[in-house]
Amino acid sequence: MKKYLLSALIFCACILQLSAQQALWGSPQLLSPEIHDNNTVTFRLRAPKAVRVQVTGDFIEPQKITTPGGEYEVPGIAELEEKDGVWEFTTPAPLSPELYSYTFIVDGLKITDSSNVYQLRDVASITNLFIVGGDRADYYKINDVSHGTVAKRWYHSPVLNTDRRMTVYTPAGYETSGKRYPVLYLLHGMGGDENAWSELGRATQILDNMIAKGEIEPMIVVMTNGNVDMDAAPGESSLGFAPPTINLPHTMEGTFETHFPDVVNFIDKNYRTVKSKKGRAIAGLSMGGFHSLHISKQYPDMFDYIGLFSAAILPGDGKAKSEIYDNFDEKLARQFSKNPALYWIAIGSTDFLYPANKEFRQKLDDNGYKYTYYESPEGHIWKNWRIYLTEFLPLLFR
Amino acid sequence: MKKYLLSALIFCACILQLSAQQALWGSPQLLSPEIHDNNTVTFRLRAPKAVRVQVTGDFIEPQKITTPGGEYEVPGIAELEEKDGVWEFTTPAPLSPELYSYTFIVDGLKITDSSNVYQLRDVASITNLFIVGGDRADYYKINDVSHGTVAKRWYHSPVLNTDRRMTVYTPAGYETSGKRYPVLYLLHGMGGDENAWSELGRATQILDNMIAKGEIEPMIVVMTNGNVDMDAAPGESSLGFAPPTINLPHTMEGTFETHFPDVVNFIDKNYRTVKSKKGRAIAGLSMGGFHSLHISKQYPDMFDYIGLFSAAILPGDGKAKSEIYDNFDEKLARQFSKNPALYWIAIGSTDFLYPANKEFRQKLDDNGYKYTYYESPEGHIWKNWRIYLTEFLPLLFR
Repeated sequence: MKKYLLSALIFCACILQLSAQQALWGSPQLLSPEIHDNNTVTFRLRAPKAVRVQVTGDFIEPQKITTPGGEYEVPGIAELEEKDGVWEFTTPAPLSPELYSYTFIVDGLKITDSSNVYQLRDVASITNLFIVGGDRADYYKINDVSHGTVAKRWYHSPVLNTDRRMTVYTPAGYETSGKRYPVLYLLHGMGGDENAWSELGRATQILDNMIAKGEIEPMIVVMTNGNVDMDAAPGESSLGFAPPTINLPHTMEGTFETHFPDVVNFIDKNYRTVKSKKGRAIAGLSMGGFHSLHISKQYPDMFDYIGLFSAAILPGDGKAKSEIYDNFDEKLARQFSKNPALYWIAIGSTDFLYPANKEFRQKLDDNGYKYTYYESPEGHIWKNWRIYLTEFLPLLFR
Repeated sequence: MKKYLLSALIFCACILQLSAQQALWGSPQLLSPEIHDNNTVTFRLRAPKAVRVQVTGDFIEPQKITTPGGEYEVPGIAELEEKDGVWEFTTPAPLSPELYSYTFIVDGLKITDSSNVYQLRDVASITNLFIVGGDRADYYKINDVSHGTVAKRWYHSPVLNTDRRMTVYTPAGYETSGKRYPVLYLLHGMGGDENAWSELGRATQILDNMIAKGEIEPMIVVMTNGNVDMDAAPGESSLGFAPPTINLPHTMEGTFETHFPDVVNFIDKNYRTVKSKKGRAIAGLSMGGFHSLHISKQYPDMFDYIGLFSAAILPGDGKAKSEIYDNFDEKLARQFSKNPALYWIAIGSTDFLYPANKEFRQKLDDNGYKYTYYESPEGHIWKNWRIYLTEFLPLLFR
């Protein structure tokens, strides 16, 4: 037996070498980012020939820039210092618990941190991520709790006459409990897709952790693709590896909202759901808030819980001709006459959609329509949408 | 109604700006890689301050390097040329149909292509990918066919006393057909995890496409995590965003193989499977081939189809004490006495495991054990494992 066997040691050494081959060789790895016990964070990059290395991310005090469209905040920049070819920066103060993203800038060239393979894609940009734990950020971590199943599943849309992909979260125990579960339909914003909430939004982790703590009802969460021109996320559809884009023309012209009962019917047919209004919620961020607003008022007997996160409050440009945008006030009146269990509006105080949301709330107030309002600092960013999800979920199905 | 509404145009412009904020701003995007009609490919990088920009990848003629462990091939390097701050390289000849990976090297610093958000992680390295279509490579593409469901699911292992994650592919139509399906258990190599076959291996695409063409039987495919110290892939377990490593000590000491019936029992309990030997296959690459060899001979009534892809043919270092490695010859004799429907061995002609596989085949020959052999060019690389999968699948369950 032994004569024809390599030793495991040689095997492992070879695998290590070949792995380096397969993955294209690189420099020895540095520890970056290093999160210290006091929650300061050190970033490192080996770049002996670089003249200037910077790090930019949402943990650095933002800069204000002025454009013809107004004044905006963009992530700040910090300088790394070089020693023996390794550049380094440590945050001067501990970071608050949060999920952060960053990239390096080497002599003007934006690059990801090759020491940190954990990344997020947001539309056409990739950034590295890290989590400083504690407080709410512990919901964003994968903890040692029971985990739900996350399925990428295709459904046929009779209205759009195409197969389309969705992400479906079923809570831990779903497969064997025999119970029926309520369903949250959770919609992404412009430039997003069926992966956005589970990846950028950490929805899977938030659900696992809040369910495990008994803070929310176990529920099914359905994350659709709101771009009717795409059957799935960029790179995961038959369009191939085309560069991801923000798809303007066919996201807010009524088609997605009109075909939404296809989705609900598919889910009710394929999962053990509570098949009634009291077992359904719909929420979305930005464009997904717009979709949630219009879908919920178009189908007032479908959803008992509505969440508008930094919602775009507008019916297209007024040129989009869709039955779904007609008779806005009448439909809203009909929806509220049926007393939804929760109409929840959240927005950041510096969000460019703040004025439109304020005006919409005024309209609800003027008509005596009951809603719940949650205002956060900062603007139109994923940090806020993760926060809104953790605030919204405990209010559902109770 | 109109008075409190922003125009869609302003909304979209704002979203574009804010998206840039959220994702950290970058330079205008270039088209890279550009696959031309004649299958030459152009790579581009904007780096005005760089002195030297190279591209390295598996589409370039490899270089030979000599180490104390022997002579190895590593991916070749090509030089980009600069014009107006944009560096460019076009392959001198068309590329054959294949999935390729690459990175840039800017003044010695290995970086990914920020124009191409499509990437693969292999252990601790990230590379960009692209596909030149045609021939077998069309199996690696997402085509306009019916798609199976891919679920990330956790199961409890009574032997390991922990929850562990697996990837489960169910073929298109599974949910509604009411039929029972055969199951392929598909195992990764050292440094891999439950994501390896579906991501690096394009197993999901291969299955969708070959099933759609009627070239293989519709089947369930279960992709486990073969590292008993990890409950899930790096970054997707409770270990957090620790750097991924090749985990040496606890991957080839018998625990994974011993507990494998936990996996089969879980699948048989939770899916509509053919619950017998004739409805089960097991295959794996490298360490996964080692696992498949030992599991299939330990449980000779469990699997009718066995696939060893570039398999490590060794029982640990001889020091690993596990009942599973004992009495190798006797167990092999027992397995073959039960006439497995297929015992399939594949390896590349330059693989460092070629001699061990040759010796193992000689042993099978000497004993008159029936097997099928497939030899490819090249070595211990994902390109070969994708090829082996497309060769192996049509032989199953027929």
